[in-house]
Amino acid sequence: MPARYAIGVDLGGTKIATGITNFSGNILARRFVPTHASEGETAVIARIKESIRHIMDDIDASLEEVAGIGICCPGPLNPETGVVIMAPNLNWSHVPIVSHIVEEFGIPTFLENDANAAALAEKWFGAGQDVDSLLYITVSTGVGGGIILNGDIYRGRNHMAGEIGHAIVQPEGGVQCGCGQYGCLETISSGTAIGREAQNVVAEGGGQRMAELAGGIDGITAKTVADAAAEGDPDAEAILERAFMYLGTFVVSMLNILNVEKIVIGGGVSKLGDNLFEPVRRVVGEKMSDVPAKYTPIVPAETGDNVGILGAVGLVVKSAFRAPTK
Amino acid sequence: MPARYAIGVDLGGTKIATGITNFSGNILARRFVPTHASEGETAVIARIKESIRHIMDDIDASLEEVAGIGICCPGPLNPETGVVIMAPNLNWSHVPIVSHIVEEFGIPTFLENDANAAALAEKWFGAGQDVDSLLYITVSTGVGGGIILNGDIYRGRNHMAGEIGHAIVQPEGGVQCGCGQYGCLETISSGTAIGREAQNVVAEGGGQRMAELAGGIDGITAKTVADAAAEGDPDAEAILERAFMYLGTFVVSMLNILNVEKIVIGGGVSKLGDNLFEPVRRVVGEKMSDVPAKYTPIVPAETGDNVGILGAVGLVVKSAFRAPTK
Repeated sequence: MPARYAIGVDLGGTKIATGITNFSGNILARRFVPTHASEGETAVIARIKESIRHIMDDIDASLEEVAGIGICCPGPLNPETGVVIMAPNLNWSHVPIVSHIVEEFGIPTFLENDANAAALAEKWFGAGQDVDSLLYITVSTGVGGGIILNGDIYRGRNHMAGEIGHAIVQPEGGVQCGCGQYGCLETISSGTAIGREAQNVVAEGGGQRMAELAGGIDGITAKTVADAAAEGDPDAEAILERAFMYLGTFVVSMLNILNVEKIVIGGGVSKLGDNLFEPVRRVVGEKMSDVPAKYTPIVPAETGDNVGILGAVGLVVKSAFRAPTK
Repeated sequence: MPARYAIGVDLGGTKIATGITNFSGNILARRFVPTHASEGETAVIARIKESIRHIMDDIDASLEEVAGIGICCPGPLNPETGVVIMAPNLNWSHVPIVSHIVEEFGIPTFLENDANAAALAEKWFGAGQDVDSLLYITVSTGVGGGIILNGDIYRGRNHMAGEIGHAIVQPEGGVQCGCGQYGCLETISSGTAIGREAQNVVAEGGGQRMAELAGGIDGITAKTVADAAAEGDPDAEAILERAFMYLGTFVVSMLNILNVEKIVIGGGVSKLGDNLFEPVRRVVGEKMSDVPAKYTPIVPAETGDNVGILGAVGLVVKSAFRAPTK
């Protein structure tokens, strides 16, 4: 029986999400198990294998029917060797995850980092299906990115391309980032940065509505800011405006440099919808000189919570479509 | 007789430089004629054709021995259709230059913008011969760039990729750029910006040594600043330091995004040598988190004044090496 399914594993520090799909990315079954990273890599790998078996059982799929297994997790990792180089949230260092999975199942297995996989998910199954090049931006606790050029992930010299969260957008006087540097995009436009900025505003005597909504300064998050902005609170609106002005300005730079066909924005903060997309599009309209680029579509990601599974599945599908048929 | 030569035409607003080379980029003959753009496109095109004939005569080359003709000029232009869309310094609009040349000579002819051609020159014949990916940065009156990925020019959606001079590095409070926007890299790190900043310093009562060297505020250019800095003038040193801190920080962002193997810097301001490369390398060392990327070579361009001719020649050579042999 010819292969007609693909399996995607979204390996996170909290949970392992596994899905089995057809080649159109329709999810036929999906499972979630806790990662329990503290139990060590052997236990986690065993749980991944078990999840793969369960998901196949769920639709009575045989191994012959599965074209391959894709795995995505936070980097740095090496997609060519299939080794997770370092994953702090899993406490993994140099784990040859692909070898472990291939030993067990004997079918093609692929590894990619979260953000690149997400970009691929959007290219194959989401908002980027009509283009060959796009920049995917995820805005959540941090800011990440994946670049699709000529229909495939652009990885760069040592698979570290697309680290847009650490593009420096404030070369002078910026806030320190988790990476150690100052003025990274992530220090201004991430959900964490938005929440922190709101706490600063409250600490300086402003933003009372945000403090009320959160039950005190320490409870303030990006969600609080969004809720207050939705009520028309000017302090909250100003915080979002600045965060998304920087994000939009960064998109201008990216269009000048990469000249891609589409910008796709996902991640938790993108759920703010127009509150994010409207200022980003406005800034691009104002600041972009090249006329075709000025009208580059800037759209929400479409793969939603399945982005990890579908990105991992994308690795299998693109490989299956490229490999010579048997 | 098999083709063994390539012709490169570097079409500028002031002069037309034409060269004929072997496939290793050795220039066998070279000619310069004034462009006289004011005489109109027909006259300019006639001069290009004449230059091509003369350069072939110089080495007694026949058309059968020439693999093709490359032309580079300022953009925007369309390398696929061979049309110069707009070249303000030539007063050209929608000129099908490639068709004109093919009509005359009947051999493969290629068109590319200056900065992309320069990147290709460095990849084929200069500092980038050992890598498959690089970012070429030209720092002169403006700031431009060309991106080489997988050994070839990366052009983007509508051939506008690599416009790094208009990456916005100062989203708030920047100086207005010639492009109309504020805070572009070009407004801080170009030769023009360096000269203007020095004039500002003098206007505010500082920088007396620079004013002396230039015989007054209006004569101050980037060269003045470099000369004063070479003498140890602290005002001049501070101006260069800031310009190149921004350039270095931009390189950090580019390494995080493009993760290329090498950064090659050319253009008039790069002739400052260590005065430019030392601060750029220092900033990258300080601000780059990814360890392999931190040590990305940042090197001077090697094709010098022949960059345009060799970039144009590169278009021919890469095509000849890719096309099936006859």
